[in-house]
Formats: sequence, structure tokens, C-alpha cells
Amino acid sequence: MPRSFEENLALYAKLAIKHGVNLQLDQELIMTADINDAPLVRLLVKEAYQAGAKNVAVMFNDEISSLIRYQEASSNAIGYAPQWFYDSIARAYSEGAARLAITGSNPALLRDIDPDKIATSSKVNAVASKEMMEYIGEFKVNWNIIGSPSAGWAKQVFPDLSEAEAISKLWDAIFVTARVNEEDPLAAWEQHCNNLEIHQNHLNSLNLDSVRFRGPGTDLTVGLAEGHIWVGGWGYAKNGVRCAANIPTEEVFTMPHRARVNGVASSTKTLSLRGQILEGIEVEFKDGKVVKASAKKGEETFLKLLESDEGASHLGEVALVPNSSAVSKAGVVFHNTLYDENAACHIAMGRCYSENLKGWDDMSEDQRTEAGANDSIIHVDWMIGSAEVDVDGITKDGKTVPILKAGEWVS
Amino acid sequence: MPRSFEENLALYAKLAIKHGVNLQLDQELIMTADINDAPLVRLLVKEAYQAGAKNVAVMFNDEISSLIRYQEASSNAIGYAPQWFYDSIARAYSEGAARLAITGSNPALLRDIDPDKIATSSKVNAVASKEMMEYIGEFKVNWNIIGSPSAGWAKQVFPDLSEAEAISKLWDAIFVTARVNEEDPLAAWEQHCNNLEIHQNHLNSLNLDSVRFRGPGTDLTVGLAEGHIWVGGWGYAKNGVRCAANIPTEEVFTMPHRARVNGVASSTKTLSLRGQILEGIEVEFKDGKVVKASAKKGEETFLKLLESDEGASHLGEVALVPNSSAVSKAGVVFHNTLYDENAACHIAMGRCYSENLKGWDDMSEDQRTEAGANDSIIHVDWMIGSAEVDVDGITKDGKTVPILKAGEWVS
Repeated sequence: MPRSFEENLALYAKLAIKHGVNLQLDQELIMTADINDAPLVRLLVKEAYQAGAKNVAVMFNDEISSLIRYQEASSNAIGYAPQWFYDSIARAYSEGAARLAITGSNPALLRDIDPDKIATSSKVNAVASKEMMEYIGEFKVNWNIIGSPSAGWAKQVFPDLSEAEAISKLWDAIFVTARVNEEDPLAAWEQHCNNLEIHQNHLNSLNLDSVRFRGPGTDLTVGLAEGHIWVGGWGYAKNGVRCAANIPTEEVFTMPHRARVNGVASSTKTLSLRGQILEGIEVEFKDGKVVKASAKKGEETFLKLLESDEGASHLGEVALVPNSSAVSKAGVVFHNTLYDENAACHIAMGRCYSENLKGWDDMSEDQRTEAGANDSIIHVDWMIGSAEVDVDGITKDGKTVPILKAGEWVS
Repeated sequence: MPRSFEENLALYAKLAIKHGVNLQLDQELIMTADINDAPLVRLLVKEAYQAGAKNVAVMFNDEISSLIRYQEASSNAIGYAPQWFYDSIARAYSEGAARLAITGSNPALLRDIDPDKIATSSKVNAVASKEMMEYIGEFKVNWNIIGSPSAGWAKQVFPDLSEAEAISKLWDAIFVTARVNEEDPLAAWEQHCNNLEIHQNHLNSLNLDSVRFRGPGTDLTVGLAEGHIWVGGWGYAKNGVRCAANIPTEEVFTMPHRARVNGVASSTKTLSLRGQILEGIEVEFKDGKVVKASAKKGEETFLKLLESDEGASHLGEVALVPNSSAVSKAGVVFHNTLYDENAACHIAMGRCYSENLKGWDDMSEDQRTEAGANDSIIHVDWMIGSAEVDVDGITKDGKTVPILKAGEWVS
């Protein structure tokens, strides 16, 4: 007998706490969610306390209030970020808290807001939250992101359905990507992470110099950082806890060299960024830096993103995802990066992840930059893979190794 | 034509921001609310930004998640309070933020939870939030509390109505207490605060030694602090902003002398405390301290409250409210202290308010205690007034001045 929605939701919550965050006995948990996620939040709170949480601090957002702020706030207000708030979360992480983020806001929430305002606010908040985000970016604490549909998101994905039907269909798709539709979701997730580890180990054994993406509108060679590590599925945070940062995750990713990326790339999926929809992105890289960029939709927002700081026009991540991933199988364009980046190979502008570089902790900042690490207040993934894109690895001695053929793993 | 509910709610929000908090240009606002208060919160956010708020940080709570915590958390978790969180709010206040609290949770939410657990958790959180609460107790920032019904609260007040009807009726009553039913609510509120000022000035001119409450089960003489000040309606916070801390407010209140309270007092209204319902409280004071206490309902919770610390069994506030106040006129027993304390004279166990003592800022802690000020991690009001209770003032030279007769102002 198929499980009810409520049973699936409870399993999803269990998966997030046990295998996503992997919350430890007496560990505190910082959760971020929209107020509409309350039914899921309550299941997560229950799972977390049953797992022995010391505290679960839910930081609720209300996306409608966020929109009102953009509509009504003075320019002083738009240029202000509450440092006291970000510092408090950083302090909680420094004292041992884990993080669970629930994503799912309306991707077009800020459609009618001036991109200038959004860029200003995003930037001051990114600067103010830098220390907080380092706990995530440097993988100092165990963390996890999962999805939960807002009505606005569901209607964006299924515009022809009623709101209730759209939400229900989107939950079905989310459950497929998280393996919650499987008989034993936790075991299926474990199996899946083990599979990703096989690809990760294979890629690490190749000791590649670069990867090359080729497809319609894309011929991009991404040089890899000196000492790069491919990572996939789950990994160990610096606090010693193994967690899966994303549910779903289908990627095996590593660190590009910030100065060795050349060629052109075209987006293959819609990107939701800062409450706006971006489509048809085309970018040219020279020696690691974006030298030309355009977009058919949302161009201003994309260009402003690249201007966030010096590192924003360089890459911080390159990720391989087979076109036949469980996210692709859900048969949905999600308009949400957590999902869409796990349906296609992607690259990320901005900040790199420390776990992707050997010896990070023992290196000076100059040594990291020298190895190819990129720093920025932003980290934004966008999708360049599809069934029409091939990916080759190029080894240090110039050999070409096919990695993905027509979007699928070669081995 | 009578206004719609939506129009009244918008006026209520305007009243809270303009006359309650009196939010200043470029001031930050910390708001606390339940997630179910979102429709009101959005109106408040809009009003606040239109008034020039630098930021509105809404700290949403979910009462169901709070209940789950009590049901599922380990004893370690129950004994833990997130210091990082309270410190961050204290920092926001220290940097100039104002406060707006929305109250209205289910008064019987924790009915089935062990009062021991609740006492432990309340105490550690009170200790952790002491610095934060000092900004409120010492009136360092402008602040305001308003009500917004949860379904649980509305059903407690109107058990025989459907949930939707109960919520609607409770809103009607709240609007009456806040003067939102008047043609010009903001003007009516101003007029009301001016009226309270007249009583405040009269009481201050009497230079009383003590006040005596007499009624069924009550004969209580409350000695007043040396240099006490009666305050009512609105007042100036130490940041220079005039605000009305409560909407509604019907009280004129001052500081008892912590060591000069004698006699017996009986509660005249239900008290909702720590998610539990308390009724039939009877207390005996000797030289300021509670020496005997009982309650017909919720006794354990009341006794644990008194044990919170040394100051918890002494008084921090005495307040005069006519029985015919607008809150009484609403004709509802609210089961919520914000309202019920404004329908009857009351006293508060615990921490005093600095605004009720002349020269507070220039006094040492010993001097404050000597004058009669009481300190505690708690501040809990309970109602001892009714139409059957008379209040006399006793002047320094032993004269008796009738203040309230059968619950009504004498002059």
C-alpha cells in the first residue's frame, strides 16, 4: 500500500535529521524556514529532539514580509544589514550548532523590484554574513539543505494546475529526488551516497589538470586547482560529523583554478536568483575571469551579481551530474537551484569550498590563491550540462579521458 | 458604514507603530510574533517601513513547536537556554532597536506538561535573557505589546463557538480595548492616555506612604517605595522616545516597597502562566515577603514561580485600574494578562520598573534596594481588583484618601 503524504513527510524529516544533518546527541540545531513550512518544521523539531538535540532554534522567514520590505523600505534600510543577527548565528556555530536550511520560496517573488535595490541589499547582507557563511563554506559544522514548496514556487513549476494540485505534485517530485518514494528511504539514500563515492574516487584517481565541457553554445575548459579534491554525496565536516549537505545531491564537485578557466558557456536551465528568473545566460571566460556576459532574461541581475566583488566573476566550483539523475527522473524543471543543479553539470561563480582543496587548513591565504582557490561574498551555481553536453577530463600528461558522454557517466 | 475587519486590522497596526512603539526614523524594530500572526505582522512591517524603519527583524515563534519541545526534549535540553540568541537581541537594543511584542498564544498550551520541566526551562531562559530584559524593565528603549488571537486562545475565551467565530469575536473585543472601534482610533488613544495622565498626576501629588486593598479575601497594605512615581498611559523611554508600552493600557502603576507589604490578597481573575491556567490564588505577605501561598488551580506552577529566586516572592509593581475600563467594557475574561491586568487592580511578583523610582540612574544597587526596589528574573502580574474591592491611599501623615470605591476612581 502506498504511504500517505503525512507518512512520506515524516520519513523526509527523519532522512534530513539522520542522514542530512546527522544531528549529534546534545548538539544544537539552527533551522531556517518559511512560516508556511510549519508542518514540516514540526516534524523536524520532533525528530531533532528525539535524536537528542540540545536546542532547535527555528529562524522563520516570511517571504511576503520580505517582499513588503523591498516595496516600502527607505534607501537607508535597503543599504542596512543586521550584523547583530548574523553574528549571533556565527556564535551558535562556533559553539557547536549544526544547520538545517529549508528552501522553497517563490523564485519570482521579487519580479517587480528594481534589480539595483536587490543587488544593494544582497551585497550588504552577504558582507555582514561573511563570518557566518564561512562556517558553511569551510564545512566547519555539519549542515543540510532540503526543499519545501511555497505556493508561489509550486505555481511557477506547474502554472496550469490549481495551487493545491501544484503543491502536491511538487511534493511528489521532491520525494522522488530524496528517495522518499523508495520502500526504505534511509537505506536508499545511503546506497545512493555510496554510489557517488565511487565516482568521486574514480575522478580523484585520474589526477586531472582540467575538465572540458562541449555542447551547444558551450566549449569551456575549466582548469582545476592544484591539489583539488572531488567530493560527492556525504563528507566529514571539520567538527568530525559526516553529513550530506544537500538532499537531494547528485553531483561530484571540485575546485576550479580561479585563473585557468577559458572558453564559452551557455546555461541549460532556468536560474532563480534573488527572487528573479534568469534564462539564456551566455558567458565568456578568459584566464579565469568572465570577460563577456549576457542573458536573455534577467541580464541586469546577472551582471550585478558578477560585480559583487572581484571574486564574483571567477569560478568557485565545478560539478558533474549525470543527465539521468533522480532529479532528472522526477521530470520537472524545478526553478530552484537545490534541485536543478542536481539535474545537470554546473559551475558556480564566487566562493570555493575548502573541502575541495588538499591541506586547506595548513595554507596561508596567499597559498590558497596560488593553488587556485577563489574568494567572494557570493556563491551562485548555474547549470551548463544537458543530454547534449559531453565532458572530458584532461590529465596532467595531456591525455583525454571521457567522463560524461551525452550527459551520462562513461564509467 | 462600519469598517471591515481588514480596515480595522490596518488601523490597529498603525496605532501600534505610531502610538505604541512610536517608531523613529531610521530606528530598527525587533518584533516577536507567532507564525499565525502573519497577516497582522505584514501590516506592521509595512507601517514600520513607511515610518522609516531601518530594519524590521521579525522573530517568529511557533507555539506547536514549543509544545513539541516540551514533549520530546531531553532533560539536558530542558535545562539549556540559547544565550547567543538573547545576547543578540540585547545587542540590537543596545544599538538602538525598539521592540514590539505580539502576544496571544494558547493560555493552556502546556496543560499536560510537568510543571517541573516548565519551571526549569522558564528559569534558565529568564537567567539567560536577564540582560535583554533589562532594556525593557529599565525602559531603555521604546517598546510596545499588543495582542493577536491564536485559535487556542480564542477557544479558551469562547469555548462554545466555532474556531472561526471565536477568533472573530476575540478580535472584536481586542479592537474595543484598543479603541480601534472608535471613529478615529489614534485620536481616541491619545485622549485616553491624556486621561490616565490626570490620574497619574493626582496620585503623585498625594505623596502616599502606602495603598490598602480591601475586598473579599483581600486586605492588603502595600507600602510604596521611597521616591516612587506613579506612571500611566505613555511615558518616555531612556532613549527619549515617548511610547505606550501596552495596548491596551488602563493602569496607573508604581513601585511597592519590597519590605513593606503586609496582609492577604486573593486573585479575582484567571491567570495564564507558563502555558497553564491558574485560579483562586491566595497569598499572605509579611514584611514584603510571601509567607503563605495557595491556588485552587495551578498551585504547583504558582509555588514554583515564587521559588524562581529571592525577589520572586516580593512585589515589583502595584497597579490601579478602574473596574469600568475599556477592557472591562469588552465584557470578556481574556485569560491573557495583557488584557486582564487592564480590567482590574493588580500586583506583580518580581522585578520592578526603574521608571517608577525617582533618581534610579544615579543610585547604586544598594540605594535602590534601600528605597524599596525589588529585583528578580521574573515579573508576573496577577489581578486582585474587582467591583467589590476598595482602594485607599494612606499619606505620610496617616491620612486616608479614598482612591477607588467599589472598583471605580473616586476622583
